[in-house]
Amino acid sequence: MADQSLAAPIRCKAAVSRAKGEPLVVEEIVVDPPKAHEIRMKVICTSLCHTDITFWRGKEDFPIPPVFPRILGHEAYGVVESVGEQVEGFAVGDTVVPTFLGQCDSCGSCASAGSNMCSALPFVVGPGMRRDGTTRFRDGQGEPLHHFLAVSSFSQYTVVDVNQVVKVDPSVPPKLACLLGCGAGTGVGAAWRLAKVQPGSSVVIFGLGAVGLSVAQGAKMCGATKIIGVDLNPDKQELGKKFGVTDFVNPSKLGESPLSQAIIEMTGGGADYCFECIGAASVMTDAFRSAKQGNGKTVILGVEKDGKPISLPSIEFLFGKCVMGSLFGGMKPKTDIPILAEKCMNKELELEKLITHEVGLQEINTAFDLLLQGKSLRCIIWMDKLEV
Amino acid sequence: MADQSLAAPIRCKAAVSRAKGEPLVVEEIVVDPPKAHEIRMKVICTSLCHTDITFWRGKEDFPIPPVFPRILGHEAYGVVESVGEQVEGFAVGDTVVPTFLGQCDSCGSCASAGSNMCSALPFVVGPGMRRDGTTRFRDGQGEPLHHFLAVSSFSQYTVVDVNQVVKVDPSVPPKLACLLGCGAGTGVGAAWRLAKVQPGSSVVIFGLGAVGLSVAQGAKMCGATKIIGVDLNPDKQELGKKFGVTDFVNPSKLGESPLSQAIIEMTGGGADYCFECIGAASVMTDAFRSAKQGNGKTVILGVEKDGKPISLPSIEFLFGKCVMGSLFGGMKPKTDIPILAEKCMNKELELEKLITHEVGLQEINTAFDLLLQGKSLRCIIWMDKLEV
Repeated sequence: MADQSLAAPIRCKAAVSRAKGEPLVVEEIVVDPPKAHEIRMKVICTSLCHTDITFWRGKEDFPIPPVFPRILGHEAYGVVESVGEQVEGFAVGDTVVPTFLGQCDSCGSCASAGSNMCSALPFVVGPGMRRDGTTRFRDGQGEPLHHFLAVSSFSQYTVVDVNQVVKVDPSVPPKLACLLGCGAGTGVGAAWRLAKVQPGSSVVIFGLGAVGLSVAQGAKMCGATKIIGVDLNPDKQELGKKFGVTDFVNPSKLGESPLSQAIIEMTGGGADYCFECIGAASVMTDAFRSAKQGNGKTVILGVEKDGKPISLPSIEFLFGKCVMGSLFGGMKPKTDIPILAEKCMNKELELEKLITHEVGLQEINTAFDLLLQGKSLRCIIWMDKLEV
Repeated sequence: MADQSLAAPIRCKAAVSRAKGEPLVVEEIVVDPPKAHEIRMKVICTSLCHTDITFWRGKEDFPIPPVFPRILGHEAYGVVESVGEQVEGFAVGDTVVPTFLGQCDSCGSCASAGSNMCSALPFVVGPGMRRDGTTRFRDGQGEPLHHFLAVSSFSQYTVVDVNQVVKVDPSVPPKLACLLGCGAGTGVGAAWRLAKVQPGSSVVIFGLGAVGLSVAQGAKMCGATKIIGVDLNPDKQELGKKFGVTDFVNPSKLGESPLSQAIIEMTGGGADYCFECIGAASVMTDAFRSAKQGNGKTVILGVEKDGKPISLPSIEFLFGKCVMGSLFGGMKPKTDIPILAEKCMNKELELEKLITHEVGLQEINTAFDLLLQGKSLRCIIWMDKLEV
């Protein structure tokens, strides 16, 4: 199926992160043809996620060091431009979503119902392609540029492993499909696949950012009847309602009373499900304390900002509590993204409200500013709004 | 079904814990008749569990304060002597196991598959009966004696709530049935009901005491193929084999190498299930680190000795790890004890090897000494070996 006529290097524009915390540079780069088991795709749109910010900012104490120069970006939608050798099931022109988690469908993890950590190409943040560690990007001077999560979607063209790309129906709007690749998928999946939220249950979401609001959508889809949002920003009360949040707690309004006490009172003894979507060790402890005895589940979705450990009162485990977490909400990308795309189409999921801004590639630093200032949930970056 | 002819106070012998850490006093007490929803049972045998020791020792910093004078004991087997009003399903002469966890079979928790924390008579360690908080015991001077876990089996007769007593087939040997009421049931249940150990999986058990060895039996029953025991006592290597342990690690022999690293190497990437059966926060962390990425489960069975919190590296949750715990191994007592009793009878479970000693009631302090010195796993205390 390889179309060798197209398999030549492509010159295009990309937003390159050249030094930590510095504005990205939109510049011309060269994207190599796909090798065996790889696909080169034209990126139609991409969006900015906090994980991009984390690796752009490159804080010293974060456990995984950043590398530069790098092409960030990992939520995207595009079209297959060419395929390498030994690629089956994909053809030029297919509409696809790249994913930071692989799915080979033949390893033990992919075969098991309980894990989404494909062991064929294990998840690493790494600087290269996962199969051989090398890069497909060079800058105008011929210097290599690093990949990010083996996706690197802040480029008009990118190369991804066949294990890390999912076909989606072309009728799904590009910007909706794009969101499913990380943040929105993670939130919905955490309620649906990981926690398996039951109809009639109570859910608390600590932090109403894009992931937290997507948890609300997932919990609503699963039939939760009480969905409590917790956020320090009072504007999130109205916003939350649009995503299915039924009750709101602003911890700054509780005075001396512990947050978990307020949740326990609101839920008549503790919530069935508590989702931590902030990445703060103290909030993870609050979430655990807020869960119901018997079988209350606490789900960790946030990456702890400073790499701190979680401290949990051990006796509460004996009362039947459970703490879990996962990447991508426990979803298997190739299995679950198409299902969520369908749920978006039939309005079971209403994720488009996450899109607060849209810009062209040239304005990508505006997308960074908006997210850093807490002004955006998701900013879509359209890759062709630019003279190449 | 109440047999009022028998429903008079009974004078009998009991081992009373009169002050913290002091030898129990075997003395004559009075056991009141059962009230509504209660059963009075003749205790045939009982055994000593570490939880009895914890509340006898009464350490200042333990979160639940001890009370005295008290009748301890909560693993037992006996015969129904009389039943109070509104007791259905039990008759005089029934062979029974009392349980520290209730099961009403009508509350939301009992109806759900996910919880064994009956909400009709919630679990409390408390000093009295759970339905009305009062006591059924008086000493020779007419002074009330406190209950323990609403079981108090260190008495020739005791009164238990109908929610806290399970009928077992009279063909089950008394001392085997007795073990199912707490320690052995907790260990087997943790593998079977809580963690749901899968055939072919790898299991690590931190601490090969009675609970840990019962986990090994439960894991073997569920089809685990690699069962790694971890203990500082080298004698546990041979002992463990009798319970299904296939591999052994003595952490003191590892030198500088972290315990979790050794487990990760032995299991080719981390264990499917890690059970903490010691009650040490640092071991809980080791267990979590030893679990497999993707879907490795860590099960907390030990009560942390000093009430310390567990500290867990939060990032590892994102790689699909999970921490859980429960009382009584997640089992519903009335549903699951009869099933385990049958498995004991057909040798799917071989728990009798847990019984290292047997004494009469008069020698109950010997049972305490043996457990405190680490010389016994379970010591059966026969209640009729004594002149009343």
